[in-house]
Amino acid sequence: MSTGFFGNIEKIKYDPTSTSPLAYHHYNPDEIVMGKRMEDHLRFAIAYWHTFVWPGTDPFGGNTFERPWFKDSMEAAKLKADVAFEFFSLLGTPYYCFHDADVRPEGKNFAENTRNLNEIVDYFAEKQAATGVKLLWGTANMFSNRRYMSGAATNPDPDVFAFAAATVKTCMDATQKLGGENYVLWGGREGYETLLNTDLKKELDHMGRFLQMVVEYKHKIGFKGAILIEPKPQEPSKHQYDYDVATVYGFLKKYGLENEVKVNIEQGHAILAGHTFEHELALANALGIFGSIDMNRNDYQSGWDTDQFPNNVPEMALAYYQVLAGGGFKTGGTNFDAKLRRQSIDPEDLLIGHIGGMDCCARGLKAAAAMIEDKALSAPLDERYAGWNGAEAKKMLDKSSSLESIAAMVEAKDINPQPKSGKQELLENIVNRYV
Amino acid sequence: MSTGFFGNIEKIKYDPTSTSPLAYHHYNPDEIVMGKRMEDHLRFAIAYWHTFVWPGTDPFGGNTFERPWFKDSMEAAKLKADVAFEFFSLLGTPYYCFHDADVRPEGKNFAENTRNLNEIVDYFAEKQAATGVKLLWGTANMFSNRRYMSGAATNPDPDVFAFAAATVKTCMDATQKLGGENYVLWGGREGYETLLNTDLKKELDHMGRFLQMVVEYKHKIGFKGAILIEPKPQEPSKHQYDYDVATVYGFLKKYGLENEVKVNIEQGHAILAGHTFEHELALANALGIFGSIDMNRNDYQSGWDTDQFPNNVPEMALAYYQVLAGGGFKTGGTNFDAKLRRQSIDPEDLLIGHIGGMDCCARGLKAAAAMIEDKALSAPLDERYAGWNGAEAKKMLDKSSSLESIAAMVEAKDINPQPKSGKQELLENIVNRYV
Amino acid sequence: MSTGFFGNIEKIKYDPTSTSPLAYHHYNPDEIVMGKRMEDHLRFAIAYWHTFVWPGTDPFGGNTFERPWFKDSMEAAKLKADVAFEFFSLLGTPYYCFHDADVRPEGKNFAENTRNLNEIVDYFAEKQAATGVKLLWGTANMFSNRRYMSGAATNPDPDVFAFAAATVKTCMDATQKLGGENYVLWGGREGYETLLNTDLKKELDHMGRFLQMVVEYKHKIGFKGAILIEPKPQEPSKHQYDYDVATVYGFLKKYGLENEVKVNIEQGHAILAGHTFEHELALANALGIFGSIDMNRNDYQSGWDTDQFPNNVPEMALAYYQVLAGGGFKTGGTNFDAKLRRQSIDPEDLLIGHIGGMDCCARGLKAAAAMIEDKALSAPLDERYAGWNGAEAKKMLDKSSSLESIAAMVEAKDINPQPKSGKQELLENIVNRYV
Amino acid sequence: MSTGFFGNIEKIKYDPTSTSPLAYHHYNPDEIVMGKRMEDHLRFAIAYWHTFVWPGTDPFGGNTFERPWFKDSMEAAKLKADVAFEFFSLLGTPYYCFHDADVRPEGKNFAENTRNLNEIVDYFAEKQAATGVKLLWGTANMFSNRRYMSGAATNPDPDVFAFAAATVKTCMDATQKLGGENYVLWGGREGYETLLNTDLKKELDHMGRFLQMVVEYKHKIGFKGAILIEPKPQEPSKHQYDYDVATVYGFLKKYGLENEVKVNIEQGHAILAGHTFEHELALANALGIFGSIDMNRNDYQSGWDTDQFPNNVPEMALAYYQVLAGGGFKTGGTNFDAKLRRQSIDPEDLLIGHIGGMDCCARGLKAAAAMIEDKALSAPLDERYAGWNGAEAKKMLDKSSSLESIAAMVEAKDINPQPKSGKQELLENIVNRYV
Repeated sequence: MSTGFFGNIEKIKYDPTSTSPLAYHHYNPDEIVMGKRMEDHLRFAIAYWHTFVWPGTDPFGGNTFERPWFKDSMEAAKLKADVAFEFFSLLGTPYYCFHDADVRPEGKNFAENTRNLNEIVDYFAEKQAATGVKLLWGTANMFSNRRYMSGAATNPDPDVFAFAAATVKTCMDATQKLGGENYVLWGGREGYETLLNTDLKKELDHMGRFLQMVVEYKHKIGFKGAILIEPKPQEPSKHQYDYDVATVYGFLKKYGLENEVKVNIEQGHAILAGHTFEHELALANALGIFGSIDMNRNDYQSGWDTDQFPNNVPEMALAYYQVLAGGGFKTGGTNFDAKLRRQSIDPEDLLIGHIGGMDCCARGLKAAAAMIEDKALSAPLDERYAGWNGAEAKKMLDKSSSLESIAAMVEAKDINPQPKSGKQELLENIVNRYV
Repeated sequence: MSTGFFGNIEKIKYDPTSTSPLAYHHYNPDEIVMGKRMEDHLRFAIAYWHTFVWPGTDPFGGNTFERPWFKDSMEAAKLKADVAFEFFSLLGTPYYCFHDADVRPEGKNFAENTRNLNEIVDYFAEKQAATGVKLLWGTANMFSNRRYMSGAATNPDPDVFAFAAATVKTCMDATQKLGGENYVLWGGREGYETLLNTDLKKELDHMGRFLQMVVEYKHKIGFKGAILIEPKPQEPSKHQYDYDVATVYGFLKKYGLENEVKVNIEQGHAILAGHTFEHELALANALGIFGSIDMNRNDYQSGWDTDQFPNNVPEMALAYYQVLAGGGFKTGGTNFDAKLRRQSIDPEDLLIGHIGGMDCCARGLKAAAAMIEDKALSAPLDERYAGWNGAEAKKMLDKSSSLESIAAMVEAKDINPQPKSGKQELLENIVNRYV
Repeated sequence: MSTGFFGNIEKIKYDPTSTSPLAYHHYNPDEIVMGKRMEDHLRFAIAYWHTFVWPGTDPFGGNTFERPWFKDSMEAAKLKADVAFEFFSLLGTPYYCFHDADVRPEGKNFAENTRNLNEIVDYFAEKQAATGVKLLWGTANMFSNRRYMSGAATNPDPDVFAFAAATVKTCMDATQKLGGENYVLWGGREGYETLLNTDLKKELDHMGRFLQMVVEYKHKIGFKGAILIEPKPQEPSKHQYDYDVATVYGFLKKYGLENEVKVNIEQGHAILAGHTFEHELALANALGIFGSIDMNRNDYQSGWDTDQFPNNVPEMALAYYQVLAGGGFKTGGTNFDAKLRRQSIDPEDLLIGHIGGMDCCARGLKAAAAMIEDKALSAPLDERYAGWNGAEAKKMLDKSSSLESIAAMVEAKDINPQPKSGKQELLENIVNRYV
Repeated sequence: MSTGFFGNIEKIKYDPTSTSPLAYHHYNPDEIVMGKRMEDHLRFAIAYWHTFVWPGTDPFGGNTFERPWFKDSMEAAKLKADVAFEFFSLLGTPYYCFHDADVRPEGKNFAENTRNLNEIVDYFAEKQAATGVKLLWGTANMFSNRRYMSGAATNPDPDVFAFAAATVKTCMDATQKLGGENYVLWGGREGYETLLNTDLKKELDHMGRFLQMVVEYKHKIGFKGAILIEPKPQEPSKHQYDYDVATVYGFLKKYGLENEVKVNIEQGHAILAGHTFEHELALANALGIFGSIDMNRNDYQSGWDTDQFPNNVPEMALAYYQVLAGGGFKTGGTNFDAKLRRQSIDPEDLLIGHIGGMDCCARGLKAAAAMIEDKALSAPLDERYAGWNGAEAKKMLDKSSSLESIAAMVEAKDINPQPKSGKQELLENIVNRYV
């Protein structure tokens, strides 16, 4: 009862000596890394939208992919689901993620959307039970339909706010029903094209209240997963409110949600915001809001979201280093928010893209774990800040200290600090021993 | 008793019909705009560092400017002050701004730095009294000296933290003594070159405590001005903690300082952070933390801080529109954080650069004021959000509403929102009637 | 026999005192500027694709525009043409531009494409005759159809090269038939996604030969217009061969075409390549390959091609300054390669966008003309380089001079040059008197 | 007779099992790669300026390094040379590179500069003889001194042109005398800050004639090395004429120098121009102008020239792949145009930075060589373009073909090309087997 879409390709196996492009060379689910199975560390998920929905368009070109399910019907939606779960099983990835609009036909109105979603959720539930594949997170697509062109929660039209709120409810219900471990909000239209037609304060307040309602509903239905915001600085909007991790943190603080909501960090979005991926991860850890990752890579020479499969192991090692240093994933995981290049039109390209990405993640994870176990970076770090362990240094941070008291001390002791080498090149060389 | 540095150039006057480069064509201090003198709206300040200290270096070239005060002595510092106050008087700008290191010779240690600063502060006090020029803000240079190469408040070495705290105390004292209306902190070294040698959480906590002490000291000495943080995303550091307005807001919230500290927003820093200037201004207004501006322009094709004199009136009108829409400057003003191009080596270039910038500010201000008085933008804005004035819309934002209650309403009323034109081009055309 | 699409809007008139958004406030076709009618200077053209074809999609959203002609049939194509020529007449723009794929239904194969194109060309010819509107340039869309996903002239598959060559022939024939004044090639797919699958040298050679054939065919059919290449650095491709003006020049030189082909320069493409618009214009003039312009603006904070209507008059004045300084348009003109924001869904937004753009162009043109007539910039420029008018200076550039002879002179005369002010701020202030 | 600057550090050796930061783990000079010693492939050179001259300044900070030779005297210059040649010997790098201003004290005029240069050249000649270290290339610093602030060859003042020409003569003489294998020109000031004061055409013509004289002088003195231009898009200038490889090629063609001059390509400059390093290398190969490389890395999140030591092996493998695919270095080599981070103030940091960079180059080279020997990328590439080997395909590129003849063929055969997968992900996975 295979759909036949992938021909006679068989389940992808770990075979480090194989030269086949259809084998894992590094990803070995059962291998123990820092006391835990690699699969349980990485918690891979497949993104429904890029893998099964995106047709290969770009701003200057139409479809390049031709998939038998590219129709807007329930029958096509089920065929798509059949292929998707086949794909998950071929790869052996434990999780997937979806937007409502990825999985159900578009209805004429809210009620029909809901009915369609519910029907496909039942279908997914059966598939999950049959395959053991689980839902990492669900989300609502509130950016593609023209009703959302001026925002969802931040739309100047209250009817759109209402429609969006209702839609999120149904998507949270669906996520709950499918045992999803997180619920994600990405605000691609929560932003503006021009300040000339935008009331920034009002829109932020509406977005804040919207998110409060999401959290309230989570508790109401007893959803145990995490609510995650996915930052992105721009595209499609000129400016998006969830610009980056630091911005989201300020937003959560403003609306009293910093203990309720975490972030889903995407490599490509970090790059577009002018950061490294590891910066966003480290900052989320420092602020206590790290949740999950969208793994991909952005082309450094392109100014838009390229959503490519990751392939640079040294960079990925630094990312997983931050994940592991923060204690690893709890409800989160590694979702491939990555799409094929639009010239990669063969079904097997879908498998090859993911295999390469998973292998790179495995290499990154192992290198990161080794650095942690060896204290390769943490030992020099501790040494660099060791001065702060002294009593006098600690006292300076006390409420009892003041600019005056410190100035008096500096003068009294004639403190005249001398710089010490930051040893960046040494540390970079150390990392290069692991990757 | 002129220094003679500017030859026989006389006080710059408003003369709209003049073709002289040494006349204002638009800046007319006494002209009334929205019920207030133009001078009182704009509150121009001259930046000591760019105008009197920077010698025309760039990363690939040495000094191009030759100024008689380019020596590290108290005598030279006083000559520099003489020329500076002459310059303020020639331009008729009411304010100036300085770092400690701009105005005093570098001492051998903290005590000598303090003595030198105090001596020059007394000299400035006399000059202020004689000329009527006032201090918009003071600040401490905690980025040029090699002791700060790894940070000031965020240095791994507690001695540097202490030295920085002591230095800020002396600079706040100086600012207070000179009647300064604000005190600014720009954290050019509060950031990192590499995460590999950085403890992000610890550094943020140290910076938070440092800022708390600044606020405590402000209250202790009864300083009435505002404490301002100046955001910048990077340069000189790879990443700076005060990345942009949104980031600073989150930081202030985390350390309980959002009602005590505001922001000093620089055009060029906004651009480097991927924003427009007006975005940063609008956001600061929305978050209630707008303080002052550093007026300049960044070359859009250069990836570093070019600190040029502003010259694009349409853009400046949008910036002053945000300033006026937020109620105008309170303690803040328009500080020219702008420097000559390094080929502009003649003394009169200093005047010409500022004259052009001031004229552009005046044009921007007048256009902004006209748009506000005509409700040219606010009337369409109100109309766009008018739907939110309805009782049902307001109720949606109440604590009484929930995703469920809204979903029920959407289904019951079959709400199916239709998009409405955002009219961006119309609004842009409207702006173009004013600039 | 109006289509009714624009309701009862009447022909847009120049009325500088009107407050209507549907009037020109600056564009006055018959006004004489530097001895020539404004219309004959600017030579405005409307881009068929953005105005009548693009449905408001973006990478994250579907159609927002709903136009009655959005169907793939000959009947719809004719309705579209009816509306387009109505639009040209309402605005009074003298020219338009199109790709084959904009105007004809897509055929099943080359023969059907050609038949469809020919049918619509006949229809256009009638429309042109009836309205007096002319064709500024024609071009072939060799980037949207999936057959071109890996390039047109640079495709690894020779069949695609053949299909592209055949298609260009038909489009040149169509352009010739409609009296087009230029023929443009934009190579959106002539580039690569990854060097890993690209033979750069082979692809450049194929593209060179392709362009030679275009030039040969031009002469064969007696086409009097200019062949223009439109540079763009990237998007949709990661790298495009026609990166910028300098790159195109090198390409033309390599294939012996520098006297046969010129450039069509787009503001947004200049920005994406890291240049100002005026840089690209000035360089094209310096290299003798300036042809025409695609007028629009790119958002400086967005890393992709935003194709917005221009609205910054100071920038536009600098662009038209270069156009006029090079002698103005010959066969070229000002094509609006600009599209509405996707939220601007009303028919009148199409008019308003163009009206604003045309008014800004008129303002830019008038400011540029005044600067030229006043020698506001050229007189200081001549002075700056005056040293090169001396006999000795000229001799240094002779074939008779050498490093040795010059070194001997420097030593003999002890030449020790002193820097002179570049006066950038003064020149910027001068420009600001005109804009 | 060691200077003692590096303490008791001994010659760095290849020791893959060592955990010392002062050992090579991958660079093994005598190891044979593709039939040639690794040292002869890589041809490492040390950049005098970054390593021995740059004092750790940045645009916001002063010196952080304290070196005993930081004085402007001949004695200091000789001490610097002593340390430099010790450094070369410690690392075992076969080459070095220098600007005149790096090595000699600044004179009062041209004659003194020349005398100083000649004296130090004699000193270098002895050092070279004693150590066996060779000169990869020499160059003239025509950007730091204020006389060059408005350009060297492109200065509006002919005296500066003369001074620059004379200076290049002396530097070419020095390079010739020291057996240098190349002579490089980097035009950091050959560009502009504003078009408002720039005559683009005149400046390009002057620069063209200047370069012709360089080539003429090369032949005159029988210099056997290559003349190389080093492209950079901007910084310090807003725009530099030698923007990138494609731009330099067009320039060389315009002035008839494409067979006389090649390019020295720097990673960081490629990034600043919006390209990958491998793009610039591949293009230079395709155009026949590849010469040498400046190896470093630019921070992808910084908009200026960061000149860091390279550390990303996968990227470096792609760069050396292009070098090897083009036949490897002839006169060129791998010059480390890399500087320490300014916090890396210890002498051993200088060694560590270079060791890490050299090890990464060695890894990149070996991976690249393996890919070439395995035809890992070239075999799929040949297959992708195989269609062009057919007689009919080749004929299309003949002078005998035309758009007409091809169109006739397309119609006759009903050519309707179908897209084929570009297999980018597969190729990326293949690369990842090697790095």
